Amino acid sequence: MHPTILKNLEELYKTYSAYLSENPFTGNPDNLYDPMNYIMNLGGKRARPMLTMAAALSAGGDSNAVLPVAHTMEVFHNFSLVHDDIMDRAPSRRGQPTVHLKWDMPTAILAGDNMLVAAYRFLFGYTGQGKEAIVSLFTDTATGVCEGQQWDMDFANIEHVNEASYLEMIRLKTAVLLGCCAGSGALSAGASKDIAMQYYQFAVAVGMAFQLHDDWLDTFGDPNKTGKKPGGDIGEGKKTWLYIAAEQMGLPIANLYKEKQDEARIEAATALFKEAGLDTRLLQLAATYNEEANQLLQDLQNKGHQTQWLEELVAFLSNREH
Amino acid sequence: MHPTILKNLEELYKTYSAYLSENPFTGNPDNLYDPMNYIMNLGGKRARPMLTMAAALSAGGDSNAVLPVAHTMEVFHNFSLVHDDIMDRAPSRRGQPTVHLKWDMPTAILAGDNMLVAAYRFLFGYTGQGKEAIVSLFTDTATGVCEGQQWDMDFANIEHVNEASYLEMIRLKTAVLLGCCAGSGALSAGASKDIAMQYYQFAVAVGMAFQLHDDWLDTFGDPNKTGKKPGGDIGEGKKTWLYIAAEQMGLPIANLYKEKQDEARIEAATALFKEAGLDTRLLQLAATYNEEANQLLQDLQNKGHQTQWLEELVAFLSNREH
Repeated sequence: MHPTILKNLEELYKTYSAYLSENPFTGNPDNLYDPMNYIMNLGGKRARPMLTMAAALSAGGDSNAVLPVAHTMEVFHNFSLVHDDIMDRAPSRRGQPTVHLKWDMPTAILAGDNMLVAAYRFLFGYTGQGKEAIVSLFTDTATGVCEGQQWDMDFANIEHVNEASYLEMIRLKTAVLLGCCAGSGALSAGASKDIAMQYYQFAVAVGMAFQLHDDWLDTFGDPNKTGKKPGGDIGEGKKTWLYIAAEQMGLPIANLYKEKQDEARIEAATALFKEAGLDTRLLQLAATYNEEANQLLQDLQNKGHQTQWLEELVAFLSNREH
Repeated sequence: MHPTILKNLEELYKTYSAYLSENPFTGNPDNLYDPMNYIMNLGGKRARPMLTMAAALSAGGDSNAVLPVAHTMEVFHNFSLVHDDIMDRAPSRRGQPTVHLKWDMPTAILAGDNMLVAAYRFLFGYTGQGKEAIVSLFTDTATGVCEGQQWDMDFANIEHVNEASYLEMIRLKTAVLLGCCAGSGALSAGASKDIAMQYYQFAVAVGMAFQLHDDWLDTFGDPNKTGKKPGGDIGEGKKTWLYIAAEQMGLPIANLYKEKQDEARIEAATALFKEAGLDTRLLQLAATYNEEANQLLQDLQNKGHQTQWLEELVAFLSNREH
């Protein structure tokens, strides 16, 4: 641990928080702009803007110059939360009512739409290096995120999902936006497309590891640390990696997911996963992505990049994930 | 009427239709891309791309070079139809089931989101003149359209809407996108921002006249020509210009809108509007916008612009509006 670096990470967080406060959405009617500001101010780790800024610094760039890009990523992320919460019928987000419940569904659709436009507006306000490549990367990423969300919804209606499809779904739904943040940060520092792709792949690998670790925590996590009862995904009948891997092994998991999942079924499914050693295999899979991320980072360090920013950020975000 | 010009308008229509056919949305999963192609291929006048192309020609530009911009406008328009149809709980669009009914609501939200991203993607693919100004105009317009839709939804819950607010709502919801088409077409021809704004204002005025005429047709139109029973807006209790003007005159219109509107109430409201001379006043208001459009066009013609493209397009679209 490098206390100096951690101090600096805090400064990145403060810098972004100040930028966010200074750039509220403004306009009329209130019913359009209030929900946009509401979701942006529910808090959260601000992982995406911080990743964008940290990547800019790692690649020798300026974390202040890249702020409009960093904000674009956070606005886009929050747009996707507003719309995903409608699709998933989620009642709450970060302990507060979701936009479609606090207002209504039409308002939530429209607020999301205007946030997607606003994400582009902030991106166009960026005047630094690599703008065209960043706009292009962001646009490809936005399409990928839509594809990931649709795959996720499709999986609910597909009986047999294979592991590769599941990993591709979480890559699109979660990891590519992190990749876009890191890649954009590097591009803002004048990095070549190849180097930017290395930052992108690093953050995609981090995102995969995070998501798989989240899957693990959901089933096997310590409620004293996670703050929620384990087995949520099983209870909802979600076909996560554990379900898919169990099915591939020929285990009788489908029966436990067929009807409404009560406590007994959640316990039985959890026991079945454990007996098959899937808890360990899932952590191992997450570890391979972490290993990939570390190798990419090591290579960047060998090329003279200040990768401690990204190392510390990953450590910082990991600590808050539990 | 200039038969040569009309022939050429047909060619613009064919050119755009060919471009549309050659540029289907492609990707996976099908549940994301099929609804996007479905809505794009339901037909329609293609007024927005044709307006973009006609404005480019009027300003001395190239109607083929501007095709990616023209397509951006049509994709954006169809994105807004998909999302508005969810918000308005509309069962059909152009005689076919709406996307959220043919698929489902989450799919319709996501297809719309990906279309908004795709609209930007096509815009970035444009390589001609005025690109930066067009991107900026389009982004402002997209925000305006969201604001207009929210105002429209807000009006359902506001007891007294004034005329100025209503006109501003239809300007944002309908007219500014037409303005953006004409302005972008002019910018693609290398027009100055002032000239582009003149094209923009021309098309906004045309859009206002169209929308007000639509309001008139909905209540007073000949069902043999419009193909639908008059009084739809009254039946839905919509606060259109007629309602607002009647209320401003102190007429007892609110009572007729309070409960479910049956045939008798529709007839009574229509009679009340007529007795107050509001049918004539509405047509006069539409005519003032047409007059404004003509003056802007005349001025452009005096400056050497080939405005017959736009004159013929307006005539062509008006004929199909009835």
